[in-house]
Amino acid sequence: MEMLTEEGVEQAVQVCRDNGIDGLVVIGGDGSFRGGLALARHGINTIGVPGTIDLDISCTEYTIGFDSAVNTAMEAVDKVRDTSTSHERVSIIEVMGRNAGYIALWSGLAAGAEDVLLPEKYDYDEQVIVNQIIERRKRGKKHHIIINAEGIGHSQAMAKRIEAATGIETRATILGYMQRGGSPTCRDRVTGTIMGAMAVDLLAEGKSSRVVAVRGGNYIDLDFEEALAMQKEISSYEVDLVHSLSYTLINVQK
Amino acid sequence: MEMLTEEGVEQAVQVCRDNGIDGLVVIGGDGSFRGGLALARHGINTIGVPGTIDLDISCTEYTIGFDSAVNTAMEAVDKVRDTSTSHERVSIIEVMGRNAGYIALWSGLAAGAEDVLLPEKYDYDEQVIVNQIIERRKRGKKHHIIINAEGIGHSQAMAKRIEAATGIETRATILGYMQRGGSPTCRDRVTGTIMGAMAVDLLAEGKSSRVVAVRGGNYIDLDFEEALAMQKEISSYEVDLVHSLSYTLINVQK
Amino acid sequence: MEMLTEEGVEQAVQVCRDNGIDGLVVIGGDGSFRGGLALARHGINTIGVPGTIDLDISCTEYTIGFDSAVNTAMEAVDKVRDTSTSHERVSIIEVMGRNAGYIALWSGLAAGAEDVLLPEKYDYDEQVIVNQIIERRKRGKKHHIIINAEGIGHSQAMAKRIEAATGIETRATILGYMQRGGSPTCRDRVTGTIMGAMAVDLLAEGKSSRVVAVRGGNYIDLDFEEALAMQKEISSYEVDLVHSLSYTLINVQK
Amino acid sequence: MEMLTEEGVEQAVQVCRDNGIDGLVVIGGDGSFRGGLALARHGINTIGVPGTIDLDISCTEYTIGFDSAVNTAMEAVDKVRDTSTSHERVSIIEVMGRNAGYIALWSGLAAGAEDVLLPEKYDYDEQVIVNQIIERRKRGKKHHIIINAEGIGHSQAMAKRIEAATGIETRATILGYMQRGGSPTCRDRVTGTIMGAMAVDLLAEGKSSRVVAVRGGNYIDLDFEEALAMQKEISSYEVDLVHSLSYTLINVQK
Repeated sequence: MEMLTEEGVEQAVQVCRDNGIDGLVVIGGDGSFRGGLALARHGINTIGVPGTIDLDISCTEYTIGFDSAVNTAMEAVDKVRDTSTSHERVSIIEVMGRNAGYIALWSGLAAGAEDVLLPEKYDYDEQVIVNQIIERRKRGKKHHIIINAEGIGHSQAMAKRIEAATGIETRATILGYMQRGGSPTCRDRVTGTIMGAMAVDLLAEGKSSRVVAVRGGNYIDLDFEEALAMQKEISSYEVDLVHSLSYTLINVQK
Repeated sequence: MEMLTEEGVEQAVQVCRDNGIDGLVVIGGDGSFRGGLALARHGINTIGVPGTIDLDISCTEYTIGFDSAVNTAMEAVDKVRDTSTSHERVSIIEVMGRNAGYIALWSGLAAGAEDVLLPEKYDYDEQVIVNQIIERRKRGKKHHIIINAEGIGHSQAMAKRIEAATGIETRATILGYMQRGGSPTCRDRVTGTIMGAMAVDLLAEGKSSRVVAVRGGNYIDLDFEEALAMQKEISSYEVDLVHSLSYTLINVQK
Repeated sequence: MEMLTEEGVEQAVQVCRDNGIDGLVVIGGDGSFRGGLALARHGINTIGVPGTIDLDISCTEYTIGFDSAVNTAMEAVDKVRDTSTSHERVSIIEVMGRNAGYIALWSGLAAGAEDVLLPEKYDYDEQVIVNQIIERRKRGKKHHIIINAEGIGHSQAMAKRIEAATGIETRATILGYMQRGGSPTCRDRVTGTIMGAMAVDLLAEGKSSRVVAVRGGNYIDLDFEEALAMQKEISSYEVDLVHSLSYTLINVQK
Repeated sequence: MEMLTEEGVEQAVQVCRDNGIDGLVVIGGDGSFRGGLALARHGINTIGVPGTIDLDISCTEYTIGFDSAVNTAMEAVDKVRDTSTSHERVSIIEVMGRNAGYIALWSGLAAGAEDVLLPEKYDYDEQVIVNQIIERRKRGKKHHIIINAEGIGHSQAMAKRIEAATGIETRATILGYMQRGGSPTCRDRVTGTIMGAMAVDLLAEGKSSRVVAVRGGNYIDLDFEEALAMQKEISSYEVDLVHSLSYTLINVQK
């Protein structure tokens, strides 16, 4: 937080100088990059590396940590789906993603969830969900899985309302911080290694105020300010795909 | 539920006769065994096999499903522990175990939780937990993990109270039904295979009203009624061990 | 194999017509795409989807199956590395990759292997490896891990020669077909889902003789012939990175 | 090795005295316990804890490390089995177990292997295996899995011979040291914690020359000499079970 103030930045710059730090690699998201930009303006060579499980850094197609988090979420959903037996059940699994629904979308697509609620898209019309659960039950579908991004949250309250409305046992699983832990997957380790090496190479060339990123499928580096000004959106094709795969039956009937 | 009534049992018996079922293997807990006992009294050869993730079937030292569930819980706690960084945090992880704290105890011991709350033992004195969190923080301990059995439950409310009382960020993870899923571990597959084979062997010998169990480290079979009358308790040594391992620092200071 | 002959292709075309097959999705590598191209020329609408654990289909940056395979290999290397204790040891782990070293490269980078032998690059100068093992031992390094792609192979014979030359216990692990199995990772499930959906969309539009691919970080479709004519090479940056990370000590000393 | 000589033992005793070591916990197998016994005779309080992945310490029903190793082996076999498609294949998976076949037996039972070759039992009559592979193929069985304990070994040579004799593609996977690594399972962590605590409790009571063990399903402690004199055998019931489950079809036909 101190990095948002001029005194905080000057203090950080002084710490770097006192400790003989010639170059800094800042790993994080846009907030960390703004801090890095401030340090760079004060003459500390700084390179940014995008690291967050949420995937919501606009300048890059991939952020270190996403693959590990999304596999953790997917494995949890797999295990919940395994428990479908003769009992009817609705399961709500709350995954991380305060502003962005990438983890919800990917884990939902991967584990075949019936509903994926994204902060960017959800219209809070729970009746639609309730109706579809009832429709599917009529067609013999026993287990209905809803992936709920934490940006929407309140999964236990949602579970109570859905159980009351459908008469079907509904339970919430809140995955929480386990999505930030575990042994990193291969993609995260390799991406982290390559991006780290590129950051070091840039510092060794005396560069500063750059962020390493993946764009167009390639590893490149961008100016901090340019990177911070970028926008990106979640893929509509992928969002629609979740619904197509789970609602096919309903759509056909209509 | 119908198996608790005489008509329900007679209906089940008729279904067995209509379908030429000579013998039945009932996999479950005490409730399932009572149903099996009723069928056996009506002449359907029935053998019970203990299956529950909770480990709380008194006649046996092991129940099919426990090892898989407790490893799922432990891996979740491992991942939460990984997230300890420079931030102080209290994490509450709610695991299954309505009446019995075996899953909480084993996952807590295995993952080094600071507190394990068991339905059989918890005195609901939250102030003790709060004091210990504060004590530990003074000694530099950054991450405090509490495993809460669902029989105590209300983990999100507990998290709010603890955060208010300690000023440390406190989050709850509710593992839910994922503890009932996943690929079975080796111990569950082998135990299931052996117990299943023994059940078949017993039926082949014309036996009935028996349950396969592990006692004294060996696979044996018991009379249903004898098994249902047994009692067992969670190990005090193991419960005390959780506390010794985590409270050593506090105890030494005292 | 029959698809390489005109009779084979005509037979396949007839089978499609007899069974009312309007469109075909061919999942595999270049061989499968050539077969698909032949069918398309005979009027069966065919779309290709790139699937192989080896990543060696030139028209695309990603092939379904690679992520799962490379994580299996990496986890095996992780487990071997865990066994380093007071004993000195050289471990050779043979991974899949007959013509291409992508699995070896990624698992080697991810698990910090000292040597990665790639079919595209290996010069069969084992003395260099032996010398480096001896150099490192002098500097206190106890465990030396070599990832050997199956295209080079003969890991057990290599182990014997290295043990004879260095005097250090050397064992080979041959991962084999386990790299083709296991539950697919999130990336493989999502990529498979998206590519499958795109293939269906293309067939629904009456398209034929196209292959879905990832190029420039985006999902696109290409003409079969265009795709089959493409070339690609393993990244030199990544290959050099393996060596930089493990040989830093040696290079500095020189 | 030095612990087998009197000078070696006296040196070890001196090291303990020089470093003010009051008590020692020796974790390993019979060899480690003999060393511990020697130290105890010289007045160093020593307690043994059984640790080996092989399960072949006679005084105890469980040894720390077995569960983790056997799950690693089982997961590898699971992945190999996944690869069964339209191709016929024979897979040989070599697991650890120089003198004892516990890992082979448990992973074979758990993963449904057709053959499990144990050092204690194998008669080296490969023709029997070959005949059964051919029999099964006639009945439509596509994938034949053989678990081979390293005490028998030579899996790649066995693969060549079987491929030549049956005409079916046969590949060997050598799991090697990965069976000694990985994150310990819950059972290993809990058993290790309990046995470690018991060892400390014994030392705190001034005891010596004891080994902690599991017997009759309970944790107890035994005199070193008594423990070293014990014998145990692999369960015939379990060995026969592997064969019953896989050879049922053949036996019925006979």
